[in-house]
Amino acid sequence: MKKKIPDGVIERLSAYLTCLLEYQEEGDETISSDVIGQHVDVNPAQVRRDLSYFGTFGQKGVGYIIKDLIKEIQEILGSDHPHRIALVGAGNLGSAIASYEGLKRHGFYVAAIFDSDPNKIGRKIGDLKVKPAKELAKTIKKLHISIGVIAVPESSAQAVADTLVKSGVKIILNYAPVIIRVPPHIKVHETDPAKELLHTLYYLTIRARSLKKDKGLKQLRK
Amino acid sequence: MKKKIPDGVIERLSAYLTCLLEYQEEGDETISSDVIGQHVDVNPAQVRRDLSYFGTFGQKGVGYIIKDLIKEIQEILGSDHPHRIALVGAGNLGSAIASYEGLKRHGFYVAAIFDSDPNKIGRKIGDLKVKPAKELAKTIKKLHISIGVIAVPESSAQAVADTLVKSGVKIILNYAPVIIRVPPHIKVHETDPAKELLHTLYYLTIRARSLKKDKGLKQLRK
Repeated sequence: MKKKIPDGVIERLSAYLTCLLEYQEEGDETISSDVIGQHVDVNPAQVRRDLSYFGTFGQKGVGYIIKDLIKEIQEILGSDHPHRIALVGAGNLGSAIASYEGLKRHGFYVAAIFDSDPNKIGRKIGDLKVKPAKELAKTIKKLHISIGVIAVPESSAQAVADTLVKSGVKIILNYAPVIIRVPPHIKVHETDPAKELLHTLYYLTIRARSLKKDKGLKQLRK
Repeated sequence: MKKKIPDGVIERLSAYLTCLLEYQEEGDETISSDVIGQHVDVNPAQVRRDLSYFGTFGQKGVGYIIKDLIKEIQEILGSDHPHRIALVGAGNLGSAIASYEGLKRHGFYVAAIFDSDPNKIGRKIGDLKVKPAKELAKTIKKLHISIGVIAVPESSAQAVADTLVKSGVKIILNYAPVIIRVPPHIKVHETDPAKELLHTLYYLTIRARSLKKDKGLKQLRK
């Protein structure tokens, strides 16, 4: 029996899928682990190992059938059917998310956009009219929305999260620069550019320090 | 001698730092591992373990001195001095990033904004005037900018990345829904909401499948 799939594999599968969809759009039918690996910056042997978790479908000299591999990964990740998003916040960030092509490609559809600002309510973003925030719960239930995206200022993020949870949303993508609290059965992904930069910065910092012949590290350990 | 710090620790340190800065802003002087853990959704024992990598500074009954802990983590991550950002793309996303409070809190300053659209050049976003994209290389060198943020459409992302790299940027945060290729000494962080959603979706999918008495998983393994 298969064990729990490691987190790293799942993360890489998402990247492979994005790559496969790009090649499919360009009209390709097969792809090698070398090309996938190069595209997503992963060792080709690792690509083959990751995909072998779910049975081997690559053929020597041919590679993987793109269409089949897409179907397989989408089934594993659960993105083989569309998912609806409730987007809260119709400012610059919300507008950018609403028109983001990468979401639709993976079957994520922004089904409704909300804001509490009377100047934004009723405005059109793409094909959608911004709805008043007070209709959030009703709309989520009516449209069977499972994903909520928070693109509001820090001060109202927690209140929005509470409403999303109460209305039955299962996944929250939080863009507000504040950590929100939710019950354990809700999956939250915090997307804070500062956190991502800090994380990356560290590697730059240790490299700079090691270049200084460990001088920096010694100081750190003082 | 300390070994390489695990990636997970670095990621959590960034989260702890964000939490500590929030409590400091509220006027608190000390904090317990329980409070940190609750705030960032990490087990308090794990918090203490992570911080013990760098020597113990927590005191029984008192906790950690917020000011000292902030200083220590900032030194480790390299965010104890300001870093300048070149932001490329002055659309909705670029505007949202430019006005994002969470960046400044960690010492990341958007020092210049660029666009190739004549309608956007010269417009003000916050205190900054949007510069023509052709001035990117010159400005990066002049202002000693080390971080580039790509907030342009997919089709021009790679060209922007090439210019950033040639101009001496060391870290790139890429918001375009396409994987960019850079030399190995450059750190790229791809921030694709679709990838984050896919990743989170998987956990929802396996839970739904296990609720169906493994029916889904069996099908998956057919």
